[in-house]
Amino acid sequence: MRKLKLGMVGGGDGAFIGAVHRMAANLDGHWDLVAGCLSSTAEKAHRSAEVLGLARSYSSFEEMAARERARTDGIDAVSIVTPNHMHIPIARAFLQAGIHVLCDKPLTTDLAQAEAFAAECENYEHHFFLTHNYSATPMIRQAKAMVANGDLGDIRLIHAEYLQDWLSRPAEPENAQAAWRTDPSRTGGAGAIGDIGTHAYHLATFVLNEQASHLAADLNSFVEGRKVDDNANILLRFGSGARGSIFASQVATGSENGLKLRIHGTKGGLFWEQENPNQLIFTALGGVEQRITRAGSGAGDAANAVSRIPAGHPEGYLEAFATLYRDIACALAGKTDAAKDVPRLSDGVAGMRFIHACQQSSVANSAWHAL
Amino acid sequence: MRKLKLGMVGGGDGAFIGAVHRMAANLDGHWDLVAGCLSSTAEKAHRSAEVLGLARSYSSFEEMAARERARTDGIDAVSIVTPNHMHIPIARAFLQAGIHVLCDKPLTTDLAQAEAFAAECENYEHHFFLTHNYSATPMIRQAKAMVANGDLGDIRLIHAEYLQDWLSRPAEPENAQAAWRTDPSRTGGAGAIGDIGTHAYHLATFVLNEQASHLAADLNSFVEGRKVDDNANILLRFGSGARGSIFASQVATGSENGLKLRIHGTKGGLFWEQENPNQLIFTALGGVEQRITRAGSGAGDAANAVSRIPAGHPEGYLEAFATLYRDIACALAGKTDAAKDVPRLSDGVAGMRFIHACQQSSVANSAWHAL
Amino acid sequence: MRKLKLGMVGGGDGAFIGAVHRMAANLDGHWDLVAGCLSSTAEKAHRSAEVLGLARSYSSFEEMAARERARTDGIDAVSIVTPNHMHIPIARAFLQAGIHVLCDKPLTTDLAQAEAFAAECENYEHHFFLTHNYSATPMIRQAKAMVANGDLGDIRLIHAEYLQDWLSRPAEPENAQAAWRTDPSRTGGAGAIGDIGTHAYHLATFVLNEQASHLAADLNSFVEGRKVDDNANILLRFGSGARGSIFASQVATGSENGLKLRIHGTKGGLFWEQENPNQLIFTALGGVEQRITRAGSGAGDAANAVSRIPAGHPEGYLEAFATLYRDIACALAGKTDAAKDVPRLSDGVAGMRFIHACQQSSVANSAWHAL
Amino acid sequence: MRKLKLGMVGGGDGAFIGAVHRMAANLDGHWDLVAGCLSSTAEKAHRSAEVLGLARSYSSFEEMAARERARTDGIDAVSIVTPNHMHIPIARAFLQAGIHVLCDKPLTTDLAQAEAFAAECENYEHHFFLTHNYSATPMIRQAKAMVANGDLGDIRLIHAEYLQDWLSRPAEPENAQAAWRTDPSRTGGAGAIGDIGTHAYHLATFVLNEQASHLAADLNSFVEGRKVDDNANILLRFGSGARGSIFASQVATGSENGLKLRIHGTKGGLFWEQENPNQLIFTALGGVEQRITRAGSGAGDAANAVSRIPAGHPEGYLEAFATLYRDIACALAGKTDAAKDVPRLSDGVAGMRFIHACQQSSVANSAWHAL
Repeated sequence: MRKLKLGMVGGGDGAFIGAVHRMAANLDGHWDLVAGCLSSTAEKAHRSAEVLGLARSYSSFEEMAARERARTDGIDAVSIVTPNHMHIPIARAFLQAGIHVLCDKPLTTDLAQAEAFAAECENYEHHFFLTHNYSATPMIRQAKAMVANGDLGDIRLIHAEYLQDWLSRPAEPENAQAAWRTDPSRTGGAGAIGDIGTHAYHLATFVLNEQASHLAADLNSFVEGRKVDDNANILLRFGSGARGSIFASQVATGSENGLKLRIHGTKGGLFWEQENPNQLIFTALGGVEQRITRAGSGAGDAANAVSRIPAGHPEGYLEAFATLYRDIACALAGKTDAAKDVPRLSDGVAGMRFIHACQQSSVANSAWHAL
Repeated sequence: MRKLKLGMVGGGDGAFIGAVHRMAANLDGHWDLVAGCLSSTAEKAHRSAEVLGLARSYSSFEEMAARERARTDGIDAVSIVTPNHMHIPIARAFLQAGIHVLCDKPLTTDLAQAEAFAAECENYEHHFFLTHNYSATPMIRQAKAMVANGDLGDIRLIHAEYLQDWLSRPAEPENAQAAWRTDPSRTGGAGAIGDIGTHAYHLATFVLNEQASHLAADLNSFVEGRKVDDNANILLRFGSGARGSIFASQVATGSENGLKLRIHGTKGGLFWEQENPNQLIFTALGGVEQRITRAGSGAGDAANAVSRIPAGHPEGYLEAFATLYRDIACALAGKTDAAKDVPRLSDGVAGMRFIHACQQSSVANSAWHAL
Repeated sequence: MRKLKLGMVGGGDGAFIGAVHRMAANLDGHWDLVAGCLSSTAEKAHRSAEVLGLARSYSSFEEMAARERARTDGIDAVSIVTPNHMHIPIARAFLQAGIHVLCDKPLTTDLAQAEAFAAECENYEHHFFLTHNYSATPMIRQAKAMVANGDLGDIRLIHAEYLQDWLSRPAEPENAQAAWRTDPSRTGGAGAIGDIGTHAYHLATFVLNEQASHLAADLNSFVEGRKVDDNANILLRFGSGARGSIFASQVATGSENGLKLRIHGTKGGLFWEQENPNQLIFTALGGVEQRITRAGSGAGDAANAVSRIPAGHPEGYLEAFATLYRDIACALAGKTDAAKDVPRLSDGVAGMRFIHACQQSSVANSAWHAL
Repeated sequence: MRKLKLGMVGGGDGAFIGAVHRMAANLDGHWDLVAGCLSSTAEKAHRSAEVLGLARSYSSFEEMAARERARTDGIDAVSIVTPNHMHIPIARAFLQAGIHVLCDKPLTTDLAQAEAFAAECENYEHHFFLTHNYSATPMIRQAKAMVANGDLGDIRLIHAEYLQDWLSRPAEPENAQAAWRTDPSRTGGAGAIGDIGTHAYHLATFVLNEQASHLAADLNSFVEGRKVDDNANILLRFGSGARGSIFASQVATGSENGLKLRIHGTKGGLFWEQENPNQLIFTALGGVEQRITRAGSGAGDAANAVSRIPAGHPEGYLEAFATLYRDIACALAGKTDAAKDVPRLSDGVAGMRFIHACQQSSVANSAWHAL
């Protein structure tokens, strides 16, 4: 399988997620990062490229798309790791240039744009992938398989939460991460619900294999002067009859990256938490609680397919992220179904629908809103 | 301090909570159980009394109240451990007989009755205590003290949950515990919200020292044929600006007695779970997570006052329950403030207000309802 | 079943374990504490008795034994909760007076005395019980039953440890607990090995149902000026071929009451820790790790027999201690086998043999010493 | 910083650790794997190289060393991931060829060889690194820094254990991993002590910054027919006065990769476990237990230097392994001190000294043996 050539837009000096993408692309050896437009400021972009030893550095994404298209050794795919408002313009440029796209979540700044872009993409031949990385965690794949297999019976309850505390105080201007994430002109208005709520919602619906039908949301901006939500308490209803919740918070003091998922069905219950991701707690109704471990005897094919090392040797955040890159590389190399669990445009639209419904419900004093 | 004489109504053969009360009353040696009407069926009452070696067994609570009042060595207090619908009639009989009352929660079957009884009790000289036992856990007392002391700053979020799975299937008729708890004629219509939701709500508001101002509730009866709620997802708002939630479920497969409490303020966050009750997790914003243990160096006066044995020697459910009995004994013996943290009638009314608001909100499609 | 009358020697004002015994005796309502000689100082003994509301207070244990024997309503049993060097003289006095004995561990100050006393006891008709309380924990009874049942196959490894840190600094003279426990004239020379090592050793051999054949011990006194061991690292060998270890330390900073037990056999492994005692972790070889909970679906008869409340409602240190009192009460009331798992004199001798072997091995530079 | 060229000896099809090395080398993008002799069987070597898309595949390590030396674009370093008995011959060949060596542990098959090789290496100009990967875990670096900084005071106790259960049954011949690890002709005679005991011993002494002075070992081969130890219970003494232990087992049923480390000093105690590696539990004597997290507010420079992503985003086994590759790349690129914490030849000799002492002590019935 030949190595694929990767480009990157965003992710320059000081960015968190750009470095994550690079390590994720590196891990399994399927990608070479060869080109980038690492910042919207050309000078910073070139400086960052130099630090990374990047062969081809561009001053604008438009230039990058055009020039890469023109090369015989142009990039196979581009990773978009910019603030939300730039996702679609950049993705469009590369898709039109015949280059596959891997894009950070949330898809964009509002639902209407998302839906229009989804329609537009019908015309493009190249793929659009969305990096909801947590869905590639082995024990999440295990959970999804167990739900599909009926091990939990009919699902009654699903609670997902994603709690952090790093925005408990007003964001300091020099913190670039915090700055754009609390700036509605770049996020589209969503705060916690966009940055982490969409992860929690995606995770829940990915495992359940069902979108919520309605939600009721209570959004807050606890920090003085904050222009986006920093806490969301959300109730969910599903067409199947299941009920649930999403809590997303960036002011939950004492929380680092507290993404957790609980599912209760007529036959069994599951619990998983991201900060200790190599185990899945499962209890069959009337049975004894089991700790299913990654690569352990209780792990099935779905988990094992995305597991790299033996049980007891922890895999983490980067490994799951790398699985997206590996699956995409395999898919682009022609392995059918390799990327069947990698989130796509429809997941991005679902995420925007979630954000939109949260905002609509919240202004309607938490009235149920259809998704 | 002389030993006090205790009576009991309910709690006969096969009952769970009656035995708990007896052990709790025994532990510290302040009470002698001497009289009882242990069942609404006289024959069962007497049989149960014989098994327990109870000196005085009565066929009805009315007879018991009258006779005990008449004795010079009559009981000092009675514990009421019957289904909800009998709480008030029995309490009334004993209070009128000049006997203190310890009553199980919830207070009664509906809010109107609760409020009427609270008004009525203004006329009684004797005390009414409600056994929200979890509030007597040392680390909960610690949590309350830390909130009061400002260690968490202004409270932004409070999430309480109480998840069980023992009613995940239709109740078997021979299971007396399950039978009355799912029978609206005995519970008053509430299921999980009354049986365990009131515990979670009390715990949250006890620690916070503030009642919720509004709630939005989504109640469900998942089990076919069930006539009371078996799951409640509830959002909370507080006058102080805090937001929160209560989850109460008896169909959350994999849960035994999962009562948990999380509080997040501007300065710090707390986490406690009942199944591992001897520790309280505290993180000051920007600090390192701490595990404060019962009787350990981080425990303060409030926790130490209700702690019996050294750190690392676990106390449990019965010890906290016993603290209620000890505090009440001390208070009845004239120790001022001994029972200041023991729940009373007002807590019972607050619990009924919670149940009522849940039911009203739920029928109004989860609209916010004032408490 | 009539209530039994209990006496106590030791356990006056400020003592830790005396209060524990009283609560343990109270919990299930089978005992009334009616007499005591609560201190070796008569004045302190009487003052303590008054605080406890004790009917009969004696100035010496000899007087107490004589007078209680003479009464028609004399005590049925006495609890001995003094420093080690007084255990045998007191036990002898009461056994000769026809009164059953419950005695704290370790049995006495040296092995020769222990063996002589065991021989002497052949002549007494009344019972001698030793309060190795941890052996009465439900999940320890479960573990013992699982080992006996072959669920672990042939046992290969057993590691027990009991780590504390409360003696990490020189004992302050006003700390009575620390003072006698570090005074060789009262302990007999053993420090950590006697106070907690015997608990760990008993627990391991109780579950395994086999005494070690040999041990190799490295004893230390880390704290300057300390005259007894405060740390013991011990290797074990068993006649069955199993190997293991005991760590006992009172200078293991960060440890509260860290008693833990691990057993590995050809078919499965077990783990239990005292600070979270309501669960037993079991993994069948090649299977998934299970968390067996007290009163949960995985708990068997042996555990259920000593369990009081439903799963998820934690029982703790006092409940296990109370089980010893309950079992003894039932046995004295004629229930055959009720106290079959309560430690006796032979356990006390085994404990002294353990202490003796540790000391002999340690002076022989950790050479293996037969038990 | 230019990318370095890496070669590999061993690590062909089906090998565990070869794949680990490749991912570790990939993660940070500092290495390109360009050459290999992936198996001692030429045909298998070439087949494996083809699967990996390796440019240059050799039939023997001697040929590889010679040819790579001759190329202007020859490899900068080679990773040796073969059974133990081949480590030194291969390392010698590459060092003599002017190529740096990264070698798996243990260094070789016996102490005499190790010492002779160490002397020989004085003559080589190129580096020899040993991949004790766990020492590169951020929270281990944190622990080492805290010990060095005196946060624990004088160290009294250090307990390390490494428990697995994957060799609880006789190794199946088709399991290549198990086969060579239980074959004395390839391991040199050591089983668990070499494969995992050396990791535990290295970890303990790395953090403590002191080798043990003496050990007493009880080695066993529990599985019938096994020719190497599969369990080792070892006591340690240090010149500083500290005491400790190493347990290494491959028959500890219920254990996956249970490497744990506990240290107790006069001022504080530490606990770390590999299966949940992003936290370090620290308790100052008399203080509250703290959970120091990777990249959290309690983490210091030493941990942060080897941490890649924010707190709460778990790093795992591969990340720590990758840190070795990154540090070595930086050191080879001229960054002074970049690899100061990467294990070297002296660590390899210390590991062999540990193995030797275990074997000598065990045959002397666990007598203390100097290291």
